[in-house]
Amino acid sequence: MDYQNILNAIYVEIANNKQRGHVATYIPELSKVDPSKFGISLQCVNGDYFSVGDTQDGISIQSISKIFALSLALRLIGEEVWQRVDVEPSGDPFNSLIQLEHENGIPRNPCINAGAIVIADILMSELDDPKDVILSFVRKLAGNDAIQFNEKVAQSEADCGFRNAALANFLKSFGNLHNPVEKVLDLYFHMCAIEMNCQDLSKAFLVYANHGELITPKECILTRTQAKRINAIMQTCGFYDEAGEFAFRVGLAGKSGVGGAIAAIQPKQFSVTVWSPGLNAKGNSVIGMKALELLTTKTGISIF
Amino acid sequence: MDYQNILNAIYVEIANNKQRGHVATYIPELSKVDPSKFGISLQCVNGDYFSVGDTQDGISIQSISKIFALSLALRLIGEEVWQRVDVEPSGDPFNSLIQLEHENGIPRNPCINAGAIVIADILMSELDDPKDVILSFVRKLAGNDAIQFNEKVAQSEADCGFRNAALANFLKSFGNLHNPVEKVLDLYFHMCAIEMNCQDLSKAFLVYANHGELITPKECILTRTQAKRINAIMQTCGFYDEAGEFAFRVGLAGKSGVGGAIAAIQPKQFSVTVWSPGLNAKGNSVIGMKALELLTTKTGISIF
Amino acid sequence: MDYQNILNAIYVEIANNKQRGHVATYIPELSKVDPSKFGISLQCVNGDYFSVGDTQDGISIQSISKIFALSLALRLIGEEVWQRVDVEPSGDPFNSLIQLEHENGIPRNPCINAGAIVIADILMSELDDPKDVILSFVRKLAGNDAIQFNEKVAQSEADCGFRNAALANFLKSFGNLHNPVEKVLDLYFHMCAIEMNCQDLSKAFLVYANHGELITPKECILTRTQAKRINAIMQTCGFYDEAGEFAFRVGLAGKSGVGGAIAAIQPKQFSVTVWSPGLNAKGNSVIGMKALELLTTKTGISIF
Amino acid sequence: MDYQNILNAIYVEIANNKQRGHVATYIPELSKVDPSKFGISLQCVNGDYFSVGDTQDGISIQSISKIFALSLALRLIGEEVWQRVDVEPSGDPFNSLIQLEHENGIPRNPCINAGAIVIADILMSELDDPKDVILSFVRKLAGNDAIQFNEKVAQSEADCGFRNAALANFLKSFGNLHNPVEKVLDLYFHMCAIEMNCQDLSKAFLVYANHGELITPKECILTRTQAKRINAIMQTCGFYDEAGEFAFRVGLAGKSGVGGAIAAIQPKQFSVTVWSPGLNAKGNSVIGMKALELLTTKTGISIF
Repeated sequence: MDYQNILNAIYVEIANNKQRGHVATYIPELSKVDPSKFGISLQCVNGDYFSVGDTQDGISIQSISKIFALSLALRLIGEEVWQRVDVEPSGDPFNSLIQLEHENGIPRNPCINAGAIVIADILMSELDDPKDVILSFVRKLAGNDAIQFNEKVAQSEADCGFRNAALANFLKSFGNLHNPVEKVLDLYFHMCAIEMNCQDLSKAFLVYANHGELITPKECILTRTQAKRINAIMQTCGFYDEAGEFAFRVGLAGKSGVGGAIAAIQPKQFSVTVWSPGLNAKGNSVIGMKALELLTTKTGISIF
Repeated sequence: MDYQNILNAIYVEIANNKQRGHVATYIPELSKVDPSKFGISLQCVNGDYFSVGDTQDGISIQSISKIFALSLALRLIGEEVWQRVDVEPSGDPFNSLIQLEHENGIPRNPCINAGAIVIADILMSELDDPKDVILSFVRKLAGNDAIQFNEKVAQSEADCGFRNAALANFLKSFGNLHNPVEKVLDLYFHMCAIEMNCQDLSKAFLVYANHGELITPKECILTRTQAKRINAIMQTCGFYDEAGEFAFRVGLAGKSGVGGAIAAIQPKQFSVTVWSPGLNAKGNSVIGMKALELLTTKTGISIF
Repeated sequence: MDYQNILNAIYVEIANNKQRGHVATYIPELSKVDPSKFGISLQCVNGDYFSVGDTQDGISIQSISKIFALSLALRLIGEEVWQRVDVEPSGDPFNSLIQLEHENGIPRNPCINAGAIVIADILMSELDDPKDVILSFVRKLAGNDAIQFNEKVAQSEADCGFRNAALANFLKSFGNLHNPVEKVLDLYFHMCAIEMNCQDLSKAFLVYANHGELITPKECILTRTQAKRINAIMQTCGFYDEAGEFAFRVGLAGKSGVGGAIAAIQPKQFSVTVWSPGLNAKGNSVIGMKALELLTTKTGISIF
Repeated sequence: MDYQNILNAIYVEIANNKQRGHVATYIPELSKVDPSKFGISLQCVNGDYFSVGDTQDGISIQSISKIFALSLALRLIGEEVWQRVDVEPSGDPFNSLIQLEHENGIPRNPCINAGAIVIADILMSELDDPKDVILSFVRKLAGNDAIQFNEKVAQSEADCGFRNAALANFLKSFGNLHNPVEKVLDLYFHMCAIEMNCQDLSKAFLVYANHGELITPKECILTRTQAKRINAIMQTCGFYDEAGEFAFRVGLAGKSGVGGAIAAIQPKQFSVTVWSPGLNAKGNSVIGMKALELLTTKTGISIF
């Protein structure tokens, strides 16, 4: 498949799109991003790499970090993870407290904030220096040792993260948070504040397209079952309350973040990252979803 | 792939399984089914057909009918369907009224009862004899003109369908039901009471695996986009509040019914139907899910 | 206390009030009422009676009938009533289905529709001709044998009562309705469609102000405890989700109906009925609440 | 009325009651209280005072403090209070977050935790030293300068107050908390940790029975309207989700706390405090409710 030509065609088609959504403003630091930015990186399991646009700009990965944190938690304690987080779509916004109250503090899945906060708590219990370990893990997946936390973003999230603090305290009241609330939140906010570019993200996500195996260096990061589980979760829960829409329009397993990036995979074939900071009302990148829809239409590749 | 050997192996492995769940009792007529029944039919897009077990027994297809009704509605009014039903996972049990109240009578998706009742209303508005048309449609997909409604089951559902009557009246109060409540319910109960065997179901579902095209006779039943949309909905919403679990354990797009059947597809490869009447707490066939899990494990085929 | 002068003063003060709310339109028959109508009747436990305005016009008593039906149910089966209906404020609109789902079909109190439908079901189980008995009961309380059902209103409610039909079917699905849905609804709609004037209502409510005793003829209708229970329920639940506001502004125990009437009592002193068809957003008479507020302000009489 | 004889009779009758509920354990410091303690103090508007039992033991007033805080807030900013807290019964447990989410961060009433936290925030915005002011206010109402915060209890609440921290952060995320979360919670926990005995509480509550006026020294603390509003709120919201039951069984306006005290009033007649540490499932004192029920039965005094 001539991926480069396809990416170029998408770039041209997207360029004239006036409807670009709104940059996230609830985290002040994120609101400063240039809304016209756009990039796509596509990494094939055979090692080929294609890209177009602003693929070297640092992006706040935000909720995409939930997939990395979940991967690490599965490596550390395996299936025990599912005693503290469920795997079902939530049907509610990403930061809802309602289901948590009805379901005794067990978050619906690791892709909503409550679930990711529990995952952060697991990492904190298992690791001496969880921030360091998660950063090393992400650097290894992406093959880029320059990846860093953006401390300003982490601070910005902490300063206005009252809803997340509500979630964490609520989880704690149900006994589903074992470490101090502030420490878990600090780790969570740092995870969200990891800065990577499109290329980094597409390279890092290849492991999910490749049955858990890293290609360079060749190394088994996740079992085949773990990779499959994560893909299934991304498919059903990766896009907040727009998972069904994404499944139909795009048909890849993926995860979006309010920084405007979407990382997605086609099993056994490729991982792809697209970035455009403008979001729709549900918190997903407008142009990002459009670009991935064009990708699956033009390639004829889709899960369905 | 040697599907027949794989089905045989699954049959043997399943035979000794003691945990078989409980036959649905809320519809009296369904409670009479022999819980030890078990069958699998697998239909490939190349025309090959494989089966093992009780694949010629009539099964009450129940919620699987929602997929046929949706297909027919899409053929009749196309994308207008989505003005009256959404496409997102519900996160609530199949017969919940709560979301409906918060979301002004727009059901979350066509796989929950409220959504299917709206679809039945659409069919009733568009067709002179909707029962006749849906039966003809299913017969054509399955290539079996002997398929019938089981009137006893339809009556049994009507006699105890208070929750569905509540849903229909509730939808009507929001203006999202255009025909008389009793008529729509009568159609809905009849759809659920269609009786097909495993072979019929696997043949009928091939159209979803085959981009909307029937193979014998060759005919385009749904557009490629419609088939993709339906598959995406089955993937994210086809298993009540166990969609995430099914996506992980099985990884096929499918739909279950409380009669104990599950019909599922692997795009471009095959459709498969498995039947065992015992259900788990979420209303899905225990042995059916196990058998499909074995199928994807043994074949190595999975969406993810 | 010079009640007549006080009622006259209220009448004058109300006359110039421009904000009169909106006549209920969801029951077509009710929407035909003249919105400028206004009357107050006040009946003292010593037998004195005062009135001003349109106190001889027939009013559709609507939800006020819930108090009569509850009284009859308490007379018939006593405290057993509370096994099927609770006594707590609902905090939700009068026709909500949500709490019912979370609380297994036990309505929060007899003043919301679901609760009154259960009460109607109790009457139907206990009585051969419940319509006849409830009408006789109301006539006796009011001392007026001319009181009738308004069949047109009853029919109008039945024709558009989808939300109530949803509630009744939902209750039935939980096993908290013992008679056929249509029969219970027919009784419920008839109760709501009883037509009484302000004078009738104030006379009929005296029994609640008078510890359960009718004054003419002297007869014990309810035990002292039953009357106290009903008053407590009116106080905490009688005004849908505006009970707190009414308790503060007026401070009497009472019940409103969407026909625009409010019947209220000051224990040991008087019952009062006010009528003005215009409703506020919560379904209570705008002018009615204002008039009762003036009454308690001018008399200095209030529960609190 | 011979109140002393009535209190004595209640004391005797209560003494043999085996069903005493369970002492609150979620605040460790409260769990140490002797469950056999019992006292009643009754303060008449004419100055008479009656008591029986352990009326000089210090009690953690807990939620009863919400009434003092509300009174102070009304004195400071008057009706503006109602722009940030509503006055309706909640129908949900005292620490629920659900309604808050559906109602954009406006708590249902000042008697649930969320509402009281907003009231604490108002006090913090209006006062330089809110802890000092609230303590002085309570001392004045009770006529006892020895009343103190129990710092151990305050600390104990802070150490395990994750649900309250969730509520406060949630309110902050909606913009309905103007001061830093930890500071507001510290004030809130201190309010709850005020220690008073039965005598103090009955004296302090007399102001609500007496139209807002303190009797010694004679001083207007609240306007007549403010006192009426507070009484109405206590009546409809003072007993968590048992307000309806209390209204019926007791028929006084009052407020309970998980320390096992209940303070209640009969307007224009008396205030009464009863204390017994064992709680029922809804968080109200078992013996306290029983004793007040006996009081209104024996005196024949009740709102209804």
